[in-house]
Amino acid sequence: MDSEPREILIENLISQLAGLPSIGRKTAQRLAYHLLAQDEASVRELARTLTDAKARIHACAVCGNYTEKEVCRICDNGRRQQNLICVVEKPADILAFERSGSYQGVYHVLGGSISPLDGIGPADLNFAKLWERSAPGQVELILALNTNAEGEATATFIAQKLHGAPVKISRLARGIPVGSELEYVDELTVQRALESRVEVI
Amino acid sequence: MDSEPREILIENLISQLAGLPSIGRKTAQRLAYHLLAQDEASVRELARTLTDAKARIHACAVCGNYTEKEVCRICDNGRRQQNLICVVEKPADILAFERSGSYQGVYHVLGGSISPLDGIGPADLNFAKLWERSAPGQVELILALNTNAEGEATATFIAQKLHGAPVKISRLARGIPVGSELEYVDELTVQRALESRVEVI
Repeated sequence: MDSEPREILIENLISQLAGLPSIGRKTAQRLAYHLLAQDEASVRELARTLTDAKARIHACAVCGNYTEKEVCRICDNGRRQQNLICVVEKPADILAFERSGSYQGVYHVLGGSISPLDGIGPADLNFAKLWERSAPGQVELILALNTNAEGEATATFIAQKLHGAPVKISRLARGIPVGSELEYVDELTVQRALESRVEVI
Repeated sequence: MDSEPREILIENLISQLAGLPSIGRKTAQRLAYHLLAQDEASVRELARTLTDAKARIHACAVCGNYTEKEVCRICDNGRRQQNLICVVEKPADILAFERSGSYQGVYHVLGGSISPLDGIGPADLNFAKLWERSAPGQVELILALNTNAEGEATATFIAQKLHGAPVKISRLARGIPVGSELEYVDELTVQRALESRVEVI
């Protein structure tokens, strides 16, 4: 026999797992073999959890975060400051704030950023509800958008649109990440950190 | 409202993903949000791949490795040296050898190791086929078992059982892992590496 016969099912399983973020090929192999070593019921349960979650989780009617209810647990939490709104591009960005445990406001998920090159304009994003939530005034929007051209364009669009409205708009501070070594910080971050330097004494 | 309402489906999805090996909670969150951002068809396909793989992949009739056919791609490969048999505890151990690309023999999966404390005796493991494969003689078994008490007991059992048979038995060399810093190598490994030191000049 010239070439080694193939195991399509195992290869397919490994490829699909390797297609997930932060899963390399080696981890995908280990995961595949781990799953094959489980009993059939556990694997079926994992598969059902995946399809159930995907079928029943949708965008929160208020903020656009993932939820299985009409309104997500954050918007529905009476202890959260409802007039402090952190504007993010995607639901996963919310995780970073929730993990920090230091944010007590709510969120607004735009569903992306303005990107003329990709044909994404304001009409494709969740702005209508953002204007609606900002309309009563007494609201602070914290723009937590990515620091690329699209994120900047989106921030500018929001600032222009709400110019003159009784809304406070801020953005996340830019600077040296806590715990990182200066040697490895990229030049643009260093530049921003210098520009935004804080007086000590 | 006193306590934050819960999102059972999302929590369940994250917990199940976090239960997989080498997936921490943070990676599980990232995976869950990634999956929720996919279209329903892709998530269904992943779920189907999982259940299909589990339902249709079984032990190779010759060596016990995972396969979707009767005989796995390695046993079925005419270029592999069929009388050089690497004996491992579980199918995932085969990945380490295949990744190295330096092994041209075949495998035999025992399905575990002898462990009286866990009630696992020789009758619970895939020994019958190992004796069968060794019977014709002209065979070398490379014992690639874990270096714990159970692995040692299993190796001793195989050596005793095949004592006097026309079978060569070897085991993997023990020593300092390539590329590791001596400072961080555990004491037992250092001891074994000293005992098995190799003359240079």
